[in-house]
Amino acid sequence: MPSRIRVPQFHMIHITDSLFGHYVDLVAEKMIPYQWDVLNGKGEYVRSHCIDNFKITAGELEGEHKGVVFGDTDAYKWLEAVAFCAMNGRTEYIPVADELIRLIGKAQQSDGYLNTYYTVVHPEQRWKNLREGHELYSAGHLFEAAAAYYQATGKRELFDIACRFADLLCQVFGQAKNQLKGYPGHQLIELALIKLYKVTDKESYLELSRFFIDIRGSQPNYFLEEMERDEHRIFPELNDYTPPYSQSHMPPIRQRTVEGHAVRATYMYSAMADLAQIYHDDELKEACKCLWENMTTRRMYITGGIGSSGLLERFTTDYDLPNDRMYCESCASIGIMMFGQRMASLCRDAVYYEAVERALYNTVLAGISKEGDRYFYVNPLEVWPANCMDHTTIHYVKPVRQPWFDVACCPPNIARTLASLGQYICAVDDKSLFINLFISSEMEIVLNETSVKLRLENELMQGGRLKITVCTDGKKAITVRLRVPSWLEGIAFYSGCERIRPAIENGYAVLAVNREGEQSFELSGQVPARLMAVNKNVRADVGKVALTKGPFVYCFEEVDNGENLATLRIRTDGKIKEAGPSKELPGNLPMLKVPGERIVSTIGQEELLYAPPRFEKKDEELSAIPYCMWGNRKNGEMRVFLDADY
Amino acid sequence: MPSRIRVPQFHMIHITDSLFGHYVDLVAEKMIPYQWDVLNGKGEYVRSHCIDNFKITAGELEGEHKGVVFGDTDAYKWLEAVAFCAMNGRTEYIPVADELIRLIGKAQQSDGYLNTYYTVVHPEQRWKNLREGHELYSAGHLFEAAAAYYQATGKRELFDIACRFADLLCQVFGQAKNQLKGYPGHQLIELALIKLYKVTDKESYLELSRFFIDIRGSQPNYFLEEMERDEHRIFPELNDYTPPYSQSHMPPIRQRTVEGHAVRATYMYSAMADLAQIYHDDELKEACKCLWENMTTRRMYITGGIGSSGLLERFTTDYDLPNDRMYCESCASIGIMMFGQRMASLCRDAVYYEAVERALYNTVLAGISKEGDRYFYVNPLEVWPANCMDHTTIHYVKPVRQPWFDVACCPPNIARTLASLGQYICAVDDKSLFINLFISSEMEIVLNETSVKLRLENELMQGGRLKITVCTDGKKAITVRLRVPSWLEGIAFYSGCERIRPAIENGYAVLAVNREGEQSFELSGQVPARLMAVNKNVRADVGKVALTKGPFVYCFEEVDNGENLATLRIRTDGKIKEAGPSKELPGNLPMLKVPGERIVSTIGQEELLYAPPRFEKKDEELSAIPYCMWGNRKNGEMRVFLDADY
Repeated sequence: MPSRIRVPQFHMIHITDSLFGHYVDLVAEKMIPYQWDVLNGKGEYVRSHCIDNFKITAGELEGEHKGVVFGDTDAYKWLEAVAFCAMNGRTEYIPVADELIRLIGKAQQSDGYLNTYYTVVHPEQRWKNLREGHELYSAGHLFEAAAAYYQATGKRELFDIACRFADLLCQVFGQAKNQLKGYPGHQLIELALIKLYKVTDKESYLELSRFFIDIRGSQPNYFLEEMERDEHRIFPELNDYTPPYSQSHMPPIRQRTVEGHAVRATYMYSAMADLAQIYHDDELKEACKCLWENMTTRRMYITGGIGSSGLLERFTTDYDLPNDRMYCESCASIGIMMFGQRMASLCRDAVYYEAVERALYNTVLAGISKEGDRYFYVNPLEVWPANCMDHTTIHYVKPVRQPWFDVACCPPNIARTLASLGQYICAVDDKSLFINLFISSEMEIVLNETSVKLRLENELMQGGRLKITVCTDGKKAITVRLRVPSWLEGIAFYSGCERIRPAIENGYAVLAVNREGEQSFELSGQVPARLMAVNKNVRADVGKVALTKGPFVYCFEEVDNGENLATLRIRTDGKIKEAGPSKELPGNLPMLKVPGERIVSTIGQEELLYAPPRFEKKDEELSAIPYCMWGNRKNGEMRVFLDADY
Repeated sequence: MPSRIRVPQFHMIHITDSLFGHYVDLVAEKMIPYQWDVLNGKGEYVRSHCIDNFKITAGELEGEHKGVVFGDTDAYKWLEAVAFCAMNGRTEYIPVADELIRLIGKAQQSDGYLNTYYTVVHPEQRWKNLREGHELYSAGHLFEAAAAYYQATGKRELFDIACRFADLLCQVFGQAKNQLKGYPGHQLIELALIKLYKVTDKESYLELSRFFIDIRGSQPNYFLEEMERDEHRIFPELNDYTPPYSQSHMPPIRQRTVEGHAVRATYMYSAMADLAQIYHDDELKEACKCLWENMTTRRMYITGGIGSSGLLERFTTDYDLPNDRMYCESCASIGIMMFGQRMASLCRDAVYYEAVERALYNTVLAGISKEGDRYFYVNPLEVWPANCMDHTTIHYVKPVRQPWFDVACCPPNIARTLASLGQYICAVDDKSLFINLFISSEMEIVLNETSVKLRLENELMQGGRLKITVCTDGKKAITVRLRVPSWLEGIAFYSGCERIRPAIENGYAVLAVNREGEQSFELSGQVPARLMAVNKNVRADVGKVALTKGPFVYCFEEVDNGENLATLRIRTDGKIKEAGPSKELPGNLPMLKVPGERIVSTIGQEELLYAPPRFEKKDEELSAIPYCMWGNRKNGEMRVFLDADY
């Protein structure tokens, strides 16, 4: 049996990519300070009560707990981002983080329990509203932050806090008679316990994770019973609670279609993939494969967005992918990255990174402004600012990025994801280094007792070239396994200057690194701009096309194409031209120009609403920029899909 | 100054129309008995608590008040429908109605107050939550029912109940120091008070109506102050209340765009038109004209539906007319009928009946099943049953008509509207009989001291002929003013067999009736099936066309065209053919056949979600039925607009 594929322990990693480097630098330089201000109630536009809640719980401040029940998670995600930045050599905020950790420790109860809301506001409600109270979800973010912080700094304080809480959970939840048979309303703790387990080797953490997955969805439904037992309600929109919302409609191992709240779903599927790998559980693996298949071939946007319904932020049904009223939460696309990373590891197959890349390069990156201080929660494929009105059906769709949110999961989630990009770029097993994403970077790891320095230089989008330079101490031979992306054409590999024809295994080109010193490889090919159409069952997009180049989906903005993008039509036989990058946008990515048409009249009488058709059109060249950059120049309309002249 | 145009007092009216006759007969034969059962908690599928609430309030039953705060209105609308049926000679339910009126009288408080919810549940909250409590809205329906019942039967009981309540309102509300300066959260009472005024000539009722319109929207906003005064809340979705929702953002006389909840809006505009006419108020008239213009040329669907947002059932912005997530409530289209009827009267112009007809023939009629016992609340222009899921953004869109609703305004509203169709077919002034809608019928009225019998025989949709037979006692000369519809081509008029060329005044052909005995006129012309396109600013419909014939909008159903209507495309240069009516549908209306295409493939690989375009299509003849009939055969997809081959 081949050795397990896992996240590498980087000794050093530095993202040098012209696109991602920009955003990763923003995390340390802008997002962490900006978000720290927000969490401390010092934001210019928004004031979170997050740190004050910890102070109140710790007895260091008088006052009322404010904000959502799961507000603590903002601090944990911030800490996790600080930890990942420290791994990248950016340690400026470590002293601040240490002080926050001290405060968190003081807010922890003597039995290990840690949750500012329940401790201060409703201590009598502890564990009584698992479906809405999110104590376990909050614990999950604590555990993730603790594992990252320990790995980054070697400091144990947060880790010990987490383990004390985890130990309490192992007493409270379980199959024994006196234990609770409940599970989280919002999943995450399952995968977070596995992270703790991997650092501590404590089986009880792994077993608790497995317990939460195994007990979920058993009959009678725990959450429905809970609602009958207790009248306490937190979210009015959940008065009419149905189990598929939280994937508790049947045991996860029997689930075959992705249902309910998209973030909860992908976090749970990620844990399922972890457990399938650790336990060698083929039944659980089969469930994961079916869920992945259903999600990526029936319920995922071309941008790697998921969640077709704004109400309850959830999956709907196969092929239901409306462009303007969907949710496509930034966090849900992060969930795809987490799930896909684990599936690639579980199945040893590069194909899963196609969707990870799609999610990261499009929806996740779109979630943050080029300056790093404005965020999308919802990522539409079609926006007409005039109809994005409060108090209407699509009130949740914002045509411009926002400074913060009442439920502020996305901004710190994007920060921690960008700060930990290395784990998505590379994976390792005992002898191989897997390169999964083509993001220029430099890193140092130890693999098979061998010190490895790796440099990725990606110019695939600019000229069709990816250079890999590996330098080892030559102790043992290692293998670099380079994902071969579906969007690259005319592929050729070189070792030094020599053309090579490496074996392709499970979507990876196998490159032998068998001597001390520097070896360089090159992958070359073309990344043509391509039109993409959609399966005809997707009612919303029949007859439409989107423009792509490599992993990037492009979009059309009003600032480049004038108002009313609904009147534009792409000529499918036209030649797509590349133009220089917009100077206003980071990343050095080309703009695309495509021949098209503009409908200048539909009825010929502009004062009327309805009249017999009198369609008039004129030729026009249409301009597109990468979707991840939209809304960074001027407020206006945006569309990914345009009508085609099929 | 010409005499006022008004609703005629029919001595007799009988709808003989093959289409409308079917539905009008259903009101007396099916809807009134069906709804009576529902209101009495005896429905097969649904049980309203409406009558029980009156019994409890009257002290005839022990129990709890149940159902929505404005549940009483269901009984009032039912009574109004019974009254209108009685005017049409269907008096079967009068004894039952009399018994209900007795009960209502017993539920009335000694000071005249009448509202089962507030009397039983929250007597201390009387008039304290005008924005949500709907006491005035409920009173409005009582007043409308009372006026109709009195006019139909001459019986005074309900009328006296209404006047006692109205007299109380005149004491409670007004400009005097000790009076409330409030106004209804849900308008209706304004026009209902005018109806009471017209029967009683009591100026105080008229003045109270004017007061409600004049005080509305003054600053500071009454409803916002009310929310601060009192913490009692009824509708959770209104926690974040904004004045445009209830048209209280500025005084109605200054409003120029239609905003907020569409039913409230049109009911208020109707009263404004009434008041503008009665008071000869040109400023108010100008507001009405602007609002009508904004609604019909920017914010109304081709089906005569309004309310582009499902959330809060409201108008959004100009040209925002999405096909699948809108509201288009049946009651809102009834509101268009009410507003348009009054505007035609106020402006003496037939043009307003174009929209009245559009609303009635399409959305209002679609609101009821061919059997009369199933109803649409929401009237979409595009339905894919698979994605009309509970707990998702468009949960409110139902792909099949429902037996009843928790908020059950639509079914009895449709019933009372169909039962009083005469008021929309005809209007009178001192010397003229206006024929506004072409619905086969027979009627008797007295006009200018002259007894008039009128028979309309409409075959415009079947052969292009409308016959009018008038018989008078010859006492005085009268004029028949026949609306000339925009959709009729090649128009010719005949008096007897002789071609005539009548004057056309304000959209009406002026036909002199100047002798005793029978005179007959004929209007002939062609009603071609036509494609209609939409103003290009309507993003949702650029490049699409709908099929129409006369006032009827047609639609494409899955039962006739197979699944996935998004793949269909209409050839704009094709010849539209008429086919015989479907035997399964009432009304004897032709089906239409139009040459088109079906996209059979978009990407050529049906297992994929996204791939480069490979569009394949084949020619196909597409079949359409009138929109008002959709969903009467088989559950499935439906679309009004299809892509055109522009």
